Amino acid sequence: MTKPTLTLDEIRKSVSRIDKEILALLTERRELSIEVAKSKIQTEKPVRDPVREQALLEKLVKAGKEHGLDAPYIISIFHSIIEDSVLIQQAFLQQLTNPDSSHPVARVSFLGPKGSYSYLAAKHFFTKKQTSLAELPCQNFKEVVEVVENGTADYGVLPIENTSSGSINDVYDQLQHTRLSIVGEITQPIEHCILTAVDTDLESIDCLYSHPQPYQQCSDYLRSLGNVKQEYCSSTAEAMKKVAEMKSANVAAIGNASSAALYGLKPLKANIANQQENHTRFILVARNPVDVTDLIPAKTTFIMSTAQEAGSLVECLLVFRNHGINMTKLESRPVMGNPWEEMFYVDVEGNMRSDKMKLALEELTALTRYIKVLGCYPIENVTPTEIDVD
Amino acid sequence: MTKPTLTLDEIRKSVSRIDKEILALLTERRELSIEVAKSKIQTEKPVRDPVREQALLEKLVKAGKEHGLDAPYIISIFHSIIEDSVLIQQAFLQQLTNPDSSHPVARVSFLGPKGSYSYLAAKHFFTKKQTSLAELPCQNFKEVVEVVENGTADYGVLPIENTSSGSINDVYDQLQHTRLSIVGEITQPIEHCILTAVDTDLESIDCLYSHPQPYQQCSDYLRSLGNVKQEYCSSTAEAMKKVAEMKSANVAAIGNASSAALYGLKPLKANIANQQENHTRFILVARNPVDVTDLIPAKTTFIMSTAQEAGSLVECLLVFRNHGINMTKLESRPVMGNPWEEMFYVDVEGNMRSDKMKLALEELTALTRYIKVLGCYPIENVTPTEIDVD
Repeated sequence: MTKPTLTLDEIRKSVSRIDKEILALLTERRELSIEVAKSKIQTEKPVRDPVREQALLEKLVKAGKEHGLDAPYIISIFHSIIEDSVLIQQAFLQQLTNPDSSHPVARVSFLGPKGSYSYLAAKHFFTKKQTSLAELPCQNFKEVVEVVENGTADYGVLPIENTSSGSINDVYDQLQHTRLSIVGEITQPIEHCILTAVDTDLESIDCLYSHPQPYQQCSDYLRSLGNVKQEYCSSTAEAMKKVAEMKSANVAAIGNASSAALYGLKPLKANIANQQENHTRFILVARNPVDVTDLIPAKTTFIMSTAQEAGSLVECLLVFRNHGINMTKLESRPVMGNPWEEMFYVDVEGNMRSDKMKLALEELTALTRYIKVLGCYPIENVTPTEIDVD
Repeated sequence: MTKPTLTLDEIRKSVSRIDKEILALLTERRELSIEVAKSKIQTEKPVRDPVREQALLEKLVKAGKEHGLDAPYIISIFHSIIEDSVLIQQAFLQQLTNPDSSHPVARVSFLGPKGSYSYLAAKHFFTKKQTSLAELPCQNFKEVVEVVENGTADYGVLPIENTSSGSINDVYDQLQHTRLSIVGEITQPIEHCILTAVDTDLESIDCLYSHPQPYQQCSDYLRSLGNVKQEYCSSTAEAMKKVAEMKSANVAAIGNASSAALYGLKPLKANIANQQENHTRFILVARNPVDVTDLIPAKTTFIMSTAQEAGSLVECLLVFRNHGINMTKLESRPVMGNPWEEMFYVDVEGNMRSDKMKLALEELTALTRYIKVLGCYPIENVTPTEIDVD
């Protein structure tokens, strides 16, 4: 019963054949996604149809059970497949809606050096759009914005939530003064690893290099290493660069495994963060705004300052609620040079082309001292459709 | 160019055919996993082979690129497939190693009612083991432990990290006094949704029901709802039960969509937590310890109290470090009735059958006032193999 009927070599050949077939099917399915998008243009139906997605997942879970495959497994595989299909359709429809804004090669500015989390976010975003990247690493967020403003770059990538590369407040302050528009968003997983330049073991490491944030986010694991020195760098990419130069068996960087190879480093220990899942949201800025087709979900970011009266912010938030507009983020920032005023950054789910958003903006204009639409862009976060698996 | 060449019905038929073929391939691949496990017994090689996994992923990413499929997509699909393969092999090998501890139907106690996150964790764990569940919902953690001790249940499920159902400190206090062993672990995603009993819209909701923890974890989203009353319940499942009974268009529960159908509720809005990813780790306790085969990674949990001298905890932690044993968790708890003593709970990566763990335990016994192995069990968290995608 415990004796294998096949040799390991035979098993591996079969696995290899199966994986090839899976890839071919994923490719075929993706091509059909473009056909689906084309038919949605004709029927003017939205890309996502939760009722159909639910029925699809339920059917697959049932069929999976008959094969002895458990529901969480089937759901995880098909959530990935559906997410890909949605993003491919969105990219296709957005390209039709904004024919002028597509670049075969996009010049993208980001907080460098190459290998930073901002760099990974940029790569991730444009890979899905099948666009290649001309990389423009910058020294700070101000420069990321400036090179887009002066036309050196087509897009800038800026972290906006949960960042591990510099303060987000700096980003908000840049947004307050720029003429650029937000044209997209990207969510990037942050995965900290111990990276070394030469083959070594954990016991030999007596000095680490990283940005202050990863040290905090990995504190539980680092405590288990005992008395290891921590050196601070301006970014995780900078830390990797340093460790690569030292070529020592006693030093290591904390950074992302996907970037490690850029610096010739190898992961010695993966996923050392306290929290297993850690994401940073980035925004994409450009000189011109984009239009978002009605067939896909849109997000709009406002910046506004309210009058100096108690309850005036609540008044503004009620405008959204009264129009059935869902708010996904609210941040307040002091206005520089005016300690009595506060700026608010608000993200809502909605398309500026819709009547309710136009009405809301009109009402908000009357209620605020200042309001500006920073951008309206496709929601890239594909919320997985939930099904009951009992 | 934007006209579809197929009707929507034709497209859907093709999608359906592709999905069926994918399911068949996943099934075939899983059967091969068991063959792999059998061959690993003969060669005494560990289930996971990071070098082979890396080579496999790199080959697939390359093949995917030729098909126009992006690396993150290929990696997400094959991480799921590899995870399934590893867990199936682990379950198969553990059953051979512990022939007496397998139950066709497992009687499992958990913090109820049915539909709680503990319940979902129990289901998740035993589904992968292809074991069906006899459910024993309990009122509190003490009862969860007691029904296993007195033989009414075979296993108990207890949250141990990041819980959203009651205090974890209670769980640690239970572990301090029980004779039960930890025999497994489960990590369960926590996904909060707004759930309603009747068809309604967000604007109509004026009262919410939930456990205090989800309110905290969803504070950003809840703020956007404006002036909605929050009622507190003992668990999210309890909240769902209440909302189901009220059958009102004006009330909603915050809870998990997977459990909603148990109470006839439907998700009105999914994924409302501040943090997109939120996990709770659970442990599984039983009357008898299990043996972990050397072919799979094991974790061991110790409970110990150290002498009243400065640095005595550090001395203990150095024992692990000196033997190259990686610590994954450290929690301290006061000892009841003795304010001068502290108990420590320590998780390490290692198998009690190994020489270095036996040696470490010996040295620790000399250094501590009290030490006990709470359990040695398979690591269920399959760390994804990282590859360089540049």
